[in-house]
Amino acid sequence: MPRRASATTPLLADDRHDSASESEDDALRGSSASAHTGRSLYMRLREVFLFGWALLATAGILIMAVWVSHNSQTHFSKPAGKRNLIFMVSDGMGPASLSLTRSFRQYTEGLEYGDTLTLDKHFWGSSRTRSSSSLVTDSAAGATAFSCGKKSYNGAISILPDKTPCGTVLEAAKRAGFVTGLVVTTDITDATPACFASHVDLREQEDEIAMQEVGEGPLGRVVDLMFGGGRCHFLPNGTEGSCRADDVDVVDIAKSQHGWNYIDSRAGFDALWEGKVDIPLPMLGLFADTDFPFELDRRNMNEVYPSLSEMAKTAIRALEKATVNSDKGFFLMIEGSRIDHAGHGNDPAAQVREVLEYDKAFKFVIDFLKESKTEGVLVATSDHETGGLSIARQNTPGYPEYLWYPAVLANASSSSEYLAKKLHRHIASLEDPSMLSVEELTTYINDELVVPGLGISDASDSELAEIVKSTESAQPLLAKMVSVRAQIGWSTHGHSAVDVNVYSSGGPGTEEIRGNRENSEIGQFLRNYIDVDVEAITKELVEKMDRKPSFQSVEATTAKEGDHWAAHEDFEMRRLTNDIESS
Amino acid sequence: MPRRASATTPLLADDRHDSASESEDDALRGSSASAHTGRSLYMRLREVFLFGWALLATAGILIMAVWVSHNSQTHFSKPAGKRNLIFMVSDGMGPASLSLTRSFRQYTEGLEYGDTLTLDKHFWGSSRTRSSSSLVTDSAAGATAFSCGKKSYNGAISILPDKTPCGTVLEAAKRAGFVTGLVVTTDITDATPACFASHVDLREQEDEIAMQEVGEGPLGRVVDLMFGGGRCHFLPNGTEGSCRADDVDVVDIAKSQHGWNYIDSRAGFDALWEGKVDIPLPMLGLFADTDFPFELDRRNMNEVYPSLSEMAKTAIRALEKATVNSDKGFFLMIEGSRIDHAGHGNDPAAQVREVLEYDKAFKFVIDFLKESKTEGVLVATSDHETGGLSIARQNTPGYPEYLWYPAVLANASSSSEYLAKKLHRHIASLEDPSMLSVEELTTYINDELVVPGLGISDASDSELAEIVKSTESAQPLLAKMVSVRAQIGWSTHGHSAVDVNVYSSGGPGTEEIRGNRENSEIGQFLRNYIDVDVEAITKELVEKMDRKPSFQSVEATTAKEGDHWAAHEDFEMRRLTNDIESS
Repeated sequence: MPRRASATTPLLADDRHDSASESEDDALRGSSASAHTGRSLYMRLREVFLFGWALLATAGILIMAVWVSHNSQTHFSKPAGKRNLIFMVSDGMGPASLSLTRSFRQYTEGLEYGDTLTLDKHFWGSSRTRSSSSLVTDSAAGATAFSCGKKSYNGAISILPDKTPCGTVLEAAKRAGFVTGLVVTTDITDATPACFASHVDLREQEDEIAMQEVGEGPLGRVVDLMFGGGRCHFLPNGTEGSCRADDVDVVDIAKSQHGWNYIDSRAGFDALWEGKVDIPLPMLGLFADTDFPFELDRRNMNEVYPSLSEMAKTAIRALEKATVNSDKGFFLMIEGSRIDHAGHGNDPAAQVREVLEYDKAFKFVIDFLKESKTEGVLVATSDHETGGLSIARQNTPGYPEYLWYPAVLANASSSSEYLAKKLHRHIASLEDPSMLSVEELTTYINDELVVPGLGISDASDSELAEIVKSTESAQPLLAKMVSVRAQIGWSTHGHSAVDVNVYSSGGPGTEEIRGNRENSEIGQFLRNYIDVDVEAITKELVEKMDRKPSFQSVEATTAKEGDHWAAHEDFEMRRLTNDIESS
Repeated sequence: MPRRASATTPLLADDRHDSASESEDDALRGSSASAHTGRSLYMRLREVFLFGWALLATAGILIMAVWVSHNSQTHFSKPAGKRNLIFMVSDGMGPASLSLTRSFRQYTEGLEYGDTLTLDKHFWGSSRTRSSSSLVTDSAAGATAFSCGKKSYNGAISILPDKTPCGTVLEAAKRAGFVTGLVVTTDITDATPACFASHVDLREQEDEIAMQEVGEGPLGRVVDLMFGGGRCHFLPNGTEGSCRADDVDVVDIAKSQHGWNYIDSRAGFDALWEGKVDIPLPMLGLFADTDFPFELDRRNMNEVYPSLSEMAKTAIRALEKATVNSDKGFFLMIEGSRIDHAGHGNDPAAQVREVLEYDKAFKFVIDFLKESKTEGVLVATSDHETGGLSIARQNTPGYPEYLWYPAVLANASSSSEYLAKKLHRHIASLEDPSMLSVEELTTYINDELVVPGLGISDASDSELAEIVKSTESAQPLLAKMVSVRAQIGWSTHGHSAVDVNVYSSGGPGTEEIRGNRENSEIGQFLRNYIDVDVEAITKELVEKMDRKPSFQSVEATTAKEGDHWAAHEDFEMRRLTNDIESS
């Protein structure tokens, strides 16, 4: 019967071959040399085996420990290696825009209900948007929360409520050796891009923003690539296409003082071959006087304007090539700027195409990150919702229908903005507009705008009469014709306070922005992810801008809740909405 | 010079003490017994050390492997132990309701902007809500997605588009040995609770739903606890407080045929001592003829109606006690039913209090799960958004303000529904209502309703005149007075298609419903979490209901997109909204 193992018996001790007792026996009786050699070899082998086992097991533990530590980082430790950060902003896109666009796409492409946008597949959380001055933010305070990681007042361009400048993630990235870029479809001097590369008290100071963006700011040049519109702010007053108040030639300053390469046309853009060739940096591409056309209209002007996704693709490839031999990566901000404008104009047909194009750019970034050898993260969110969009509209006094009609949006081939401009041009082209009869104007509006542009063939007399009566309000009135038929509701031509969605590629540290977050937390994530010292930039800005009293002389609105009537992104719209009836 | 290690040299081989060469030397020259014994002991110790090392390292690997496997379960494996599942439904609560209620609470309680709702802290993802018949769902199709994990047509109570019944998570839970409960603040026969414990073609068949809920359905009794309103569907026609079309006494059937304990008053509820005493199951508590009052009004009728959080607390404790000796836990559905009604009535003052009370119930559940020794999960979501709520409202034709006023909601101490009913009672109480002068009525509305109830002291003549002109529309008109002043927008008195938020306690398997999901995926998670066989229930239902042709004889609406005009939850509202003006 085998001996029972005691507490001190090794678990693998072999009853047939107890080495301890045998060794003792050997010592007592003396063993022959050959027997001894055999035993020694056996023990030696056993020892080697034990050693190998111990070594392998220990190595296993070490490997697992490293792996576990890598995978269980619930708190984000500072990154070490090279990395790229792409931040996307869907300006003015609230939660309702997603359901609207998803169903529209399913309808137009004949897809199943489970077929979602790329954005939907990367839903990450939601963001609270209020600013320091109001429960309803504007794009400036929203973008300052992203760029500086801090709440500020409506209108602030990376300036805090105490009127001191705050360093931005882009500035700190540039200082740390990252290559930086901004891609938008509105003025490159508009609030969102401005907040990453300039500091002014009020967003309306776009002439000053243009100067700072090319390198005339307190930190010099901090951006390496800019694609967008708003060329008018870069051209001296008095020259064609300028909207500057002064005669400063910002393009010339950019080129001569800061080494920018400058392109201003589709041809110039096409020569970049979507980034397949080396793109010289810094690169300034201004492709529109002000805003790009809505994507719905741009398709028909493809020879004039590149699309958001084309610009995003080109920018990413350019920045990737520029950092191929660097131990730092790049920071790129891409904005789907005009989702917001479609909201301001309450035009659902324009908005769904804007969101689809943004989704296309988003997909390109996701695919890029998947394939890239450099670690990278995409975070995408909105600054606020615009329009109070609702996918339901009570058109009849009886109990509301539970439906809406994507087909109505699909039928529209032009935005209300484009058609309104066409109407204004038509009237302006007449030798004597006052000679235009109501009948002629009604016919023109129906036959040249409503039927071919909106795809609406049942315009009522009262709808057409309303436009004839106030042609300056053609844009919201045409948009309303679409919304009413599609059964889409709006509550304002401004912004609303609903939380907005956050999307991400996932990856290191992104668990930190899961769930429901302040917009400033998103901004804090950005700087943390690329581990750059924004506080040092803030300190430098405070010092340098104190030496530039011109920045302090700008009178700012009182940043008190309720006092601020935010300025309009689209100055033309102010005129157009003058006679929207209160609901 | 030490020998160089060769590929075959053990890594820890000691040059000073090479055992292999020494052993050979020993064999050639013959060693003394004592020297041999010393070496043997040394080797023996070394071997024991190696063995111990190997063993410890191996044990370490095994422990880590188990730990890693436990922590890295990205795909949800079927649960083994006892567990509780609590599912909460915020009927009609869209994303905007959260920002609205959060800011309202911050305003009224003087909190910082970062002070959030308990819901906010458990934000989990979002849910797509469309039904099989429409892009805009109703509560019936919404609840069927939760109960059966399948899309169906608007109006369906756990019946699929092909008109076959689908087994529900509650039915399967009951069959598996779980204890089950339903807690609501509307009729317990309303769509959401009905979908868990009954099967009818159309939600309007509430008399039949009541019968099935107490145990007269194809599966017998499947619910152990019901708290809610809708008592009128349980009382025979002709008796006080009945709204049944027939003279069936459902309460009597429940008690005599299915063993229900029945309470119908606050006193009866208080005798349950919030679950601190043993509560006999099955327990049917019907505390209102139809809906509970809105929480805003209920506070003033606390002696008549328990609150949602009181009922939730009592139900959880009852179910916990009932399962204390069981190897299965409980399934409980809790609905904040009237968030939806505040949306239908476009009453923001009523809605914020409904959401706050729901948040309170949610917090109780979260705290319960944290303290419970039994594993459990809370999942909470909405079936759809109601009202097209937007936290922005363009009241003036000029450029919109970027703000809204929580103070206006704080000033209201009664819901528009309550005040409208008060008005109707006042008029009905008059001997000859036609003798009531416009002046008298105007004074009554302003002095008895608007000033004390809404806290509005600046009602315009036209606002009051409008109510006087159509007193039957007093509810939406009073609600509009609040919304206009608070600058809150609505686009419909029905539902909208925006995605709704999903909340969760987190826990095993809940990663499966992260991100953006179909509502049917939420339903599938529920059954998976408690690992119950819903398909077997479906099979049984199909067999049994085929034997009950009465279920098939009910004429159903065609489940074709756009054909369905959903029925109203609140039949009174149909009347009230009759003259809402189209916007």
